[in-house]
Amino acid sequence: MERLRRALEQASADAIIVSHLPNVRYLCGFSGSAGLLVVAGSQATFFTDSRYTIQSRSEVVGARVRIAKMGLLRAGGELLRSHRSLRRVAFSPIQITVAQKAALDAAVSRKVRWINDGGAIEKLRSIKDLGEIETIREAAELVSRTFERTRRIVCPGISELGLAAEIERDFKRQGAEGLSFETIVASGERSAWPHAHPTRKVIAKNELVVLDQGAILRGYCSDMTRTVFVGKAPPRVRGCYKAVQDALEAGKAAAKPGARAQDVDAAARNVLRRAGLARYFTHSTGHGVGLEIHESPRLGKGDQTVLTEGMVITVEPGIYIEGWGGIRIEDDIVVTARGARELTTAPRDLIEL
Amino acid sequence: MERLRRALEQASADAIIVSHLPNVRYLCGFSGSAGLLVVAGSQATFFTDSRYTIQSRSEVVGARVRIAKMGLLRAGGELLRSHRSLRRVAFSPIQITVAQKAALDAAVSRKVRWINDGGAIEKLRSIKDLGEIETIREAAELVSRTFERTRRIVCPGISELGLAAEIERDFKRQGAEGLSFETIVASGERSAWPHAHPTRKVIAKNELVVLDQGAILRGYCSDMTRTVFVGKAPPRVRGCYKAVQDALEAGKAAAKPGARAQDVDAAARNVLRRAGLARYFTHSTGHGVGLEIHESPRLGKGDQTVLTEGMVITVEPGIYIEGWGGIRIEDDIVVTARGARELTTAPRDLIEL
Repeated sequence: MERLRRALEQASADAIIVSHLPNVRYLCGFSGSAGLLVVAGSQATFFTDSRYTIQSRSEVVGARVRIAKMGLLRAGGELLRSHRSLRRVAFSPIQITVAQKAALDAAVSRKVRWINDGGAIEKLRSIKDLGEIETIREAAELVSRTFERTRRIVCPGISELGLAAEIERDFKRQGAEGLSFETIVASGERSAWPHAHPTRKVIAKNELVVLDQGAILRGYCSDMTRTVFVGKAPPRVRGCYKAVQDALEAGKAAAKPGARAQDVDAAARNVLRRAGLARYFTHSTGHGVGLEIHESPRLGKGDQTVLTEGMVITVEPGIYIEGWGGIRIEDDIVVTARGARELTTAPRDLIEL
Repeated sequence: MERLRRALEQASADAIIVSHLPNVRYLCGFSGSAGLLVVAGSQATFFTDSRYTIQSRSEVVGARVRIAKMGLLRAGGELLRSHRSLRRVAFSPIQITVAQKAALDAAVSRKVRWINDGGAIEKLRSIKDLGEIETIREAAELVSRTFERTRRIVCPGISELGLAAEIERDFKRQGAEGLSFETIVASGERSAWPHAHPTRKVIAKNELVVLDQGAILRGYCSDMTRTVFVGKAPPRVRGCYKAVQDALEAGKAAAKPGARAQDVDAAARNVLRRAGLARYFTHSTGHGVGLEIHESPRLGKGDQTVLTEGMVITVEPGIYIEGWGGIRIEDDIVVTARGARELTTAPRDLIEL
């Protein structure tokens, strides 16, 4: 909240209206599904609805809690209306809909100079403090431990959904509050779909299986992918796997303070280019991870964000060959003065089952 | 798609831009996480990015598929730019952000009369066809079967998270693709939080346990809540439970074609009012359910939607008493000419464990 107040001062903003729930949680601790925060100078007011009366009282820190009897944006707008000294108000055009903005304007019902918040809170969030890094490390460690058990039950005859069920149960039994995303288990030709949902398809001998999984711990996400081969891998699988693994290591090696986000992508992509596989690498190399599974920065072409100590990102090169299969390997890392420190720890060498 | 075209014609719209993913899926079948659909007269064009090249080819029906090299809204906007006869274009102000609208305007770069789509696709979606009802019935049946197993493992000593893990594994083992929402298991005083996330808290003797769970099958959600008592329920628990159960039945009885959404809420709320418990019923009585867990209509005060055969809704009265606990019972029902038909089938009487 203090860092946000300084950012607002620098932007000459009198107030900011925060509607994106992960931003609300980051600033005041509320973890429910309906909340709005208005920060104006030293005052902060949190609005929620009657479902969250008890929960907000127990969670919210650093803001007055108001239970709104009307829409939250209307309540926030009326607060702005009653404080005429608040003239320049920041908001996020990428998080507020056209209809919400109209509701806000109607509730404020006086001239306000709306300014783009420029992703101010996302920028604060992209650099994690030690407590956040420790939480993500624990979430990554949890996922790595689960993988050690998962690899023992991957075998011909288990379905993709059955395997996903075991992974997700293991997460919760270890205390995960939820999934960073629906677990991906994609086998055989389906492994060539980078975001395949698991199906009733049964895993067969001599198939690649891509396992992409993440658990949420105390609000923070982890995200790890491993690819295994059911049987003894033929030379083409070994060759492709090695190339992806080398790309992963090259990407991590490039993730140093001062480098740009796109440099990490270029480092990983160049390895696959030299292996003649670049055209099969159809997504960017990674993304920030924290309260949300996809955060700033994006490790892709054109993202000029300078990497800074404390950023937590994924590095996840992959190749997807239609009719053959796919391979992706993904680690979560924290950027430190000494370079990337891995938070996910499961083995990265090819596992043949 | 045909019904949408008729709705566009009635609104004198030349085209509609569809960005909300459940709407995209409803219209053309695409189930991935990046898609935009532009429907103009007899033409429909679907845009996605390179991650979904293979998947979109296998899923999309009734639209040309274009892999966009730029942002999807920019690609959609350029399509509108090149067809100058498209003058009145519908969009959804509740689903497009201020920034997306600006990107769209920039890409179109000519005068277009933007019109509010008025929730046209959501209205189509609120009335399910027989295939959709059957899918939701299967998803509800799946959840009901899981509950029969869950009730046998609720006991002092299991944690809320442990119980949620078993429920969710059971869903997937039965073929569910995912969860309608993170399973709620709230015990003891925590049951008074209507949307409590499960924690490591261990369930104890003489506690209420609220179990709210839903599974996704072939894209469609189900949603069911049951409340059990661990031990022999004291008179106050029995009395409150009976009142909530009566409210549930009254709500379902009111869900007839021709009634308004708010009538169902009033019917359930009146039962709790007569029992002196209305002030503890802090949310609305239900919502539509389908490709999304919360759909139109909202069964709450002020929603004048006329209930129609084929609507699938939840009825879920509950009471939440701080420091004591909560009770909620929820069914999914389909509105038929003969009144509500229940899709969730687990027993509704108080279960003492």
